[in-house]
Amino acid sequence: MISKLVDKIKKTNAPIVVGLDPKLSFIPEDMLKKSFDEKGRNPEGAADAFLKFNKEIIDHIYDIVPAVKPQIAMYEELGIPGLITFKKTVDYAKEKGLIVIGDIKRGDIGSTSESYAVGHLGQVSIDGEKFAGFDEDFATVNPYLGSDGVEPFINVCNSCDKGIFVLVKTSNPSSGEFQDRLIDGRPLYEIVGEQVRKWGEKSMDGAYSNVGAVVGATYPEMGKVLRQIMPNTFILVPGYGAQGGKGKDLVHFFNEDHLGAIVNSSRGIIAAWKSEAYSEFSNGQVGEAARKAALDMKKDIEEALA
Amino acid sequence: MISKLVDKIKKTNAPIVVGLDPKLSFIPEDMLKKSFDEKGRNPEGAADAFLKFNKEIIDHIYDIVPAVKPQIAMYEELGIPGLITFKKTVDYAKEKGLIVIGDIKRGDIGSTSESYAVGHLGQVSIDGEKFAGFDEDFATVNPYLGSDGVEPFINVCNSCDKGIFVLVKTSNPSSGEFQDRLIDGRPLYEIVGEQVRKWGEKSMDGAYSNVGAVVGATYPEMGKVLRQIMPNTFILVPGYGAQGGKGKDLVHFFNEDHLGAIVNSSRGIIAAWKSEAYSEFSNGQVGEAARKAALDMKKDIEEALA
Repeated sequence: MISKLVDKIKKTNAPIVVGLDPKLSFIPEDMLKKSFDEKGRNPEGAADAFLKFNKEIIDHIYDIVPAVKPQIAMYEELGIPGLITFKKTVDYAKEKGLIVIGDIKRGDIGSTSESYAVGHLGQVSIDGEKFAGFDEDFATVNPYLGSDGVEPFINVCNSCDKGIFVLVKTSNPSSGEFQDRLIDGRPLYEIVGEQVRKWGEKSMDGAYSNVGAVVGATYPEMGKVLRQIMPNTFILVPGYGAQGGKGKDLVHFFNEDHLGAIVNSSRGIIAAWKSEAYSEFSNGQVGEAARKAALDMKKDIEEALA
Repeated sequence: MISKLVDKIKKTNAPIVVGLDPKLSFIPEDMLKKSFDEKGRNPEGAADAFLKFNKEIIDHIYDIVPAVKPQIAMYEELGIPGLITFKKTVDYAKEKGLIVIGDIKRGDIGSTSESYAVGHLGQVSIDGEKFAGFDEDFATVNPYLGSDGVEPFINVCNSCDKGIFVLVKTSNPSSGEFQDRLIDGRPLYEIVGEQVRKWGEKSMDGAYSNVGAVVGATYPEMGKVLRQIMPNTFILVPGYGAQGGKGKDLVHFFNEDHLGAIVNSSRGIIAAWKSEAYSEFSNGQVGEAARKAALDMKKDIEEALA
């Protein structure tokens, strides 16, 4: 699957993933009212508005970026109706030719991780027939439980041509609390990074592995070190834009071929219409503003890499 | 919420939680056929069988144990129909007076953890009205992202009288890969345990905190140390039974008042009817076998604590 992502990045010339993390406050009043009128002022109505909002964004960016990353928590917050919208969003994005990274951060003991891997990336077998649950292309995975929590995901990557991104150094302010603690003089995130490289050897797909890593844009110096520790690992980089990361911070996450990393922006793109920088779209032009913001982000990264 | 769990443990005299982690292979042929005939040989049919199976177990154990712990991965494996059964299971168990620990192992950056916390334990606000998503009583939480990934859960614990169990030392074979690494001479799980104690101070509820910990029965010596590091922390102990933990391994997870820990068994109870030890129930008496296995487990722990 990583080779497909690399191809899409080359084709669009944009190492960018758009985070589909809707919130009610991001949705224009008209759009929200329509959903509430149709489905009620309840989770069903909110989930319907999320879907309309996501489709509007997908319709305006599918030809200029390779991938989207729905954050499942935003949907889980609404319960079942939200998760139905999550699934419809995955399907719609794939129909439009986008690669879908399910930001699910799952991870458990072996037999349980297997269920997550099957549900999100693989196919469950029922009475001899196979059924896909959520069917994302990639999923994010939490490494705290060690190899037997991650390997079931790698098995599904190999059997179903899928990929994962394992949390190594996350973008949030308190990520250092445990991840930066020194073990034999080296921070835990480096130890995890080394393990990600080893796991990756079990699922190579071209120059890169289907086992990628998550490293936050907010920690560029650590990204530089991790890039060297994991030369064949694709890095998913959250934290650009709203969380504070800038184009120049991203340079060392990439390899010399300008590949090896894909940078996520969520709010900065999907809520661009509400920001001062894109005030020409402030009358609810969600999709147009998202497209402009994605193109600006592409330019920012291009200039930084030049 | 932890005070409610303590009360239920005292009332039932059973520091036991039954893991509702259904698999198709645990379900008697008749029960499965009925669901397949009604809903189809597909995820809807499988999810219907999971619900019938769970209800059968709940009906036979609700008066002798305080709590159940559905593992959401087993349901997520089936996609949306599975998650609908997860929600119905939570509701049914609560109707029967059981406390429900959602084994969801979520955790993300602050704003995202907030969505998980609201969706699983709290209530989402839509146009001024409040709606509960999954509405478990407790949820399990992954600590890898540090304080700002955990605190949104604590806030919801405080505002909605709920609880969490944070992963400290997990029961699986490879848990030591990162969790046992030494930091200033002490294993990471102790550092996490200390942080759990600190987090717990923000949500005390009687003698214990609403912020509990997960420590595997498979590591009794580590449980002993963690018990001392976290004196007011309730410990959820997985790994008893099928994973290898025995009653005598559990002694040091408890405080002198015989409280402070609750031990989970999943397969050992819900699939008891298929095991040699309970062959008198082998003709598909799921509930009867589960009840007998739960009573035997209660006795095993009682004897160990005596």
